[in-house]
Amino acid sequence: MLIIGAGFGGLTAARRIARLPVQVTVLDRRNHHTFQPLLYQVATAGLSPGEIATPIRSILKDYSNIEVLLEEVVDFKLHNKQVITKQQALDYDFLIVASGAMHAYFGHEEWEPFAPGLKMIEDALEIRRRVLLAFELAERHKNERQNTDRSSDPDQPPLQFVVIGAGPTGVELAGTLAEIAHHALNHEFRHIDPRKTRILLIEGGPRVLPSYSERLSRKAEAQLRRLGVEVRTSHMVSRIEPGAVWVGDERIAAPVVLWAAGVAASPLGQKLGVPVDRAGRVLVQPDLSIAGHPEVLVIGDLAALNDEAGRLLPGVAQVAIQQGNFVGENIARDLNNQPRRNFHYHDKGNLATIGRNAAVAQIGKLELSGYFAWLAWLFIHILFLIGFRNRLMVMIQWAWSYLTYERGARLITGSDELPGWTESQQPGSERQPEADRAVEPSIPGSRSHS
Amino acid sequence: MLIIGAGFGGLTAARRIARLPVQVTVLDRRNHHTFQPLLYQVATAGLSPGEIATPIRSILKDYSNIEVLLEEVVDFKLHNKQVITKQQALDYDFLIVASGAMHAYFGHEEWEPFAPGLKMIEDALEIRRRVLLAFELAERHKNERQNTDRSSDPDQPPLQFVVIGAGPTGVELAGTLAEIAHHALNHEFRHIDPRKTRILLIEGGPRVLPSYSERLSRKAEAQLRRLGVEVRTSHMVSRIEPGAVWVGDERIAAPVVLWAAGVAASPLGQKLGVPVDRAGRVLVQPDLSIAGHPEVLVIGDLAALNDEAGRLLPGVAQVAIQQGNFVGENIARDLNNQPRRNFHYHDKGNLATIGRNAAVAQIGKLELSGYFAWLAWLFIHILFLIGFRNRLMVMIQWAWSYLTYERGARLITGSDELPGWTESQQPGSERQPEADRAVEPSIPGSRSHS
Repeated sequence: MLIIGAGFGGLTAARRIARLPVQVTVLDRRNHHTFQPLLYQVATAGLSPGEIATPIRSILKDYSNIEVLLEEVVDFKLHNKQVITKQQALDYDFLIVASGAMHAYFGHEEWEPFAPGLKMIEDALEIRRRVLLAFELAERHKNERQNTDRSSDPDQPPLQFVVIGAGPTGVELAGTLAEIAHHALNHEFRHIDPRKTRILLIEGGPRVLPSYSERLSRKAEAQLRRLGVEVRTSHMVSRIEPGAVWVGDERIAAPVVLWAAGVAASPLGQKLGVPVDRAGRVLVQPDLSIAGHPEVLVIGDLAALNDEAGRLLPGVAQVAIQQGNFVGENIARDLNNQPRRNFHYHDKGNLATIGRNAAVAQIGKLELSGYFAWLAWLFIHILFLIGFRNRLMVMIQWAWSYLTYERGARLITGSDELPGWTESQQPGSERQPEADRAVEPSIPGSRSHS
Repeated sequence: MLIIGAGFGGLTAARRIARLPVQVTVLDRRNHHTFQPLLYQVATAGLSPGEIATPIRSILKDYSNIEVLLEEVVDFKLHNKQVITKQQALDYDFLIVASGAMHAYFGHEEWEPFAPGLKMIEDALEIRRRVLLAFELAERHKNERQNTDRSSDPDQPPLQFVVIGAGPTGVELAGTLAEIAHHALNHEFRHIDPRKTRILLIEGGPRVLPSYSERLSRKAEAQLRRLGVEVRTSHMVSRIEPGAVWVGDERIAAPVVLWAAGVAASPLGQKLGVPVDRAGRVLVQPDLSIAGHPEVLVIGDLAALNDEAGRLLPGVAQVAIQQGNFVGENIARDLNNQPRRNFHYHDKGNLATIGRNAAVAQIGKLELSGYFAWLAWLFIHILFLIGFRNRLMVMIQWAWSYLTYERGARLITGSDELPGWTESQQPGSERQPEADRAVEPSIPGSRSHS
C-alpha cells in the first residue's frame, strides 16, 4: 500500500490504515509535514519553521507497519500497479494520491520571481526575507540621502506591500503585515516610520473571503481596514514587474509583492490518465477512486468532488482529513469483502483569521467575527497542531507576541537584494567588485589542518 | 561614531557607549545578532534559528542615540576617517572594528563545498540539511536494494560522519551528532539502524580541546568515546573530496564531512594597513587601537593581543565582551580628557560542552568534567542568551529534548542532494528529465487573476 504525500490527507489515511494488517509506505519529497494553516506566521516572522513542521517519520514512528521514504513521485504505471519515483518503481495493491496543491500563476509563471506565493516552508522564508529586507533597505536609503544629499539618486519604491488575492491566505498575510508595520517595528528605525507603510490587498472578485457569506466578507473587510490595510476589490492585476504591480493602467510601486491569487493541483494529478478540472484537480468517483481503478484513491486538494448542493469541496484541511479517514475505512471494507461507501463531507465550520483580535467564523448557521472568532481560531489551530512540543512552543510564542507585539523570528537569511530595488551609487562595489557576497578569508601561506 | 559588526564585542561596545553623549551607528551585513555558542544546536536540529538569533535593531531599539544599518563594509579611508560600504562612504570620529572571524580552509578553499564549516545561521542550516538528508538517503538506498536486488548499483558511502578539528566546535558537533544518531532517531527508520552510525572526530594535534589542560582533554576524550564518537588525534587530513576524507593514505567514505579545523579573521582586518598575524588578526596596541590611529579600535576575534603570560587571547565571547566594554570606557575617558588605560583580560573560566551530561570546565584552578560541568554550561549559556523570550524558548526546548531525546527542528529544506552521493538508476528522471526539482503546475489555458 502506497500513500503519496504526507499532508493532512495522507497522514490521516496512514494512521487509519495502520490499524489494518497491511504494510504502508508513505512517500513525500519533503522530510516534514507542514502545518499549512500557520505557514503565514512563518512568512511574517511570528513563528519559526520548526514550530509548524514536524518530520514525517517522527509523526509515524510508532506504527511499525508504516515506512516513510523521502522520494519524489514523477509518474504512474497504473496497469502494472506501479508508482515511478525519481529513483525506482514501487509496486502497490492500493494507492492513495494525496500530493496536494501549489500556488499557481495560470499562464503567468514569469511573475513568480517578483510575487512569490506561499505553500511551503521555503516560500515562507523567502517572503519573510523580502518583507524584513524592505524595511532595512528603506532605512538605509534614507540614511544615504541624509548623509550625502545625492538628489540624482534613483528613486526607490515607496515602502508599500501589495498582496494579490483576498482568499484566506491573502487576508492573513495582509492583516499580519499590517500588524508588523504598525506595531512590531515600533522604535526600531531612525530614518523611516514603519507605521506609514501602505499595505494593499487587491482582489479581482467583488469581495474578500469569497467562500464566506456576504455579511462575513463585509465584516472581514471592515476588520482589515481597521488594521490599516487598503482593500481594493474588483481590481484585476494586469502585469507584475520587478518592484511593481499594474492594476489596470495604474502602476503601483512596491518592494514586496505577494501572490495569494491562485492554487493549482499537483501535476501528478494529470498523470493518472483521468479527466482533471481547470486547476488540475482529479475528477474522482463518489468513493474517491478514479474511473476504472478502484485501487487508486485521490484525496485532499488534489481531488475534485462536489457536495450534495453541487458545490466543489474546498481545498481545506478539514476535507483532506475526512477523506483520509474515509479511504482508510473503505480499504478496511474492501479487505473484509464489504461494499464501499460514498464520501460525504461534514462541514464543521470555517474560520479565517485576519490579524490581532480579528477573524471571521462560520459554524453551521452561526456567524462570528472579531475577538470571539479570533479566539476560536486560536484555540482550534493550537489544538490541531501536530506534536505536543510544537503546540506548547507556539502557545508561548503567541502569548509573548500578543503581550509585547514582538515577533520572534525576524531573521533575514540569504540574499540581500529585492527585485526592483536598484541600489544607488555603490562606492564599495565599484572599487572592488571581487569583495562580494561570499566573504572568504584569504590567508597568505597555508597551515597544517587537523 | 561607527561600530562594525554586532557580535558580542560590537553589541557590548554599543551599549556601553550609548550612555555617552555621542551618536552611534552600528553596521552589520546581517540583520541579526547570532548567539554563536549555541549555533551547533541549530546545526544539529535541536534549536531553530529564531531561538538563537535576534534582530540587532530590536536589541538596541531603546537606545535613541544608536542607529543600526544593514550594510556591508568593504574598505577604509583612515586618513579621511571614512568607512566605505557597498553603498556609501560614512564619516566617523571613533571607529570600532568588531567584524569577527570566519571558518577558514587555509589554502584549501576548494574543500568548502564538501566540508562546510559553522559560523553563521546559513552554515548551521546547511549542516542540518546534510546530516538529516544522509539518514534519509541511506534509508532510501536500502529500500531500493531490497525491492529490486540490483547488485550492480553503485555502492553508497556508509552511514558515517566525519568532523575535522577537535576544538570546542568540533567536539560539540561530534558529541551532538552521536546523540542524534544513537538516540533521537530511534524507531524512526525501517531499513537502517541509525545507532550504527559511525562518528569520527579527526584532530591533527595530539589531543582534543587543546586550549584546556591535558587532564581535561583526556576527560573530554573519554566522554566523547562514551557517547559513541571515535576520536583520532595526531591524524592529518590530506584531502577532501565529494563524500570522502583522506587521512594520510586512508580514504574514509562519509556522506557528511564537517569542518571545524580553522578560523580566520574577517578580511577587513587586512584593509586597516597595519600588520596582521597568520590568521589575519590585527596586531593591536595595548589599548586595542591600531598603530598611528588612536581613534580606530579593534576588538573581539579580529584582534590579536597577548595576555600577561604572552599567550594570545582566545577568540571567545568573554574576551569580546570585555573588550567591548573596555573600548567604551576608554572612549569615555577620551571625551573627559583622561588618559586611556590598557586592556587586561580577566579569565572567568572556560566551558566546553560535549553532549548530554558531558562537558568540561576550567574555572581558575578548579577543573570540572561530566554532569556538573554540563549543568554549569547549561546555566551560563541560558543566562547569557540575549532576549528573555529566546531564553525561555530555549529552556523549554532543552527540557523537552532532555526528557524525550527528541530534536525540535529536524527539517530538511533546500536541495535533496549530497556531495558524493551518486543516485542509483533513476527510473523517473530518465523517463522525463524535465520533471525536476521545481515542480511547477502547468495549467492548460489561463484564468483571470484577482
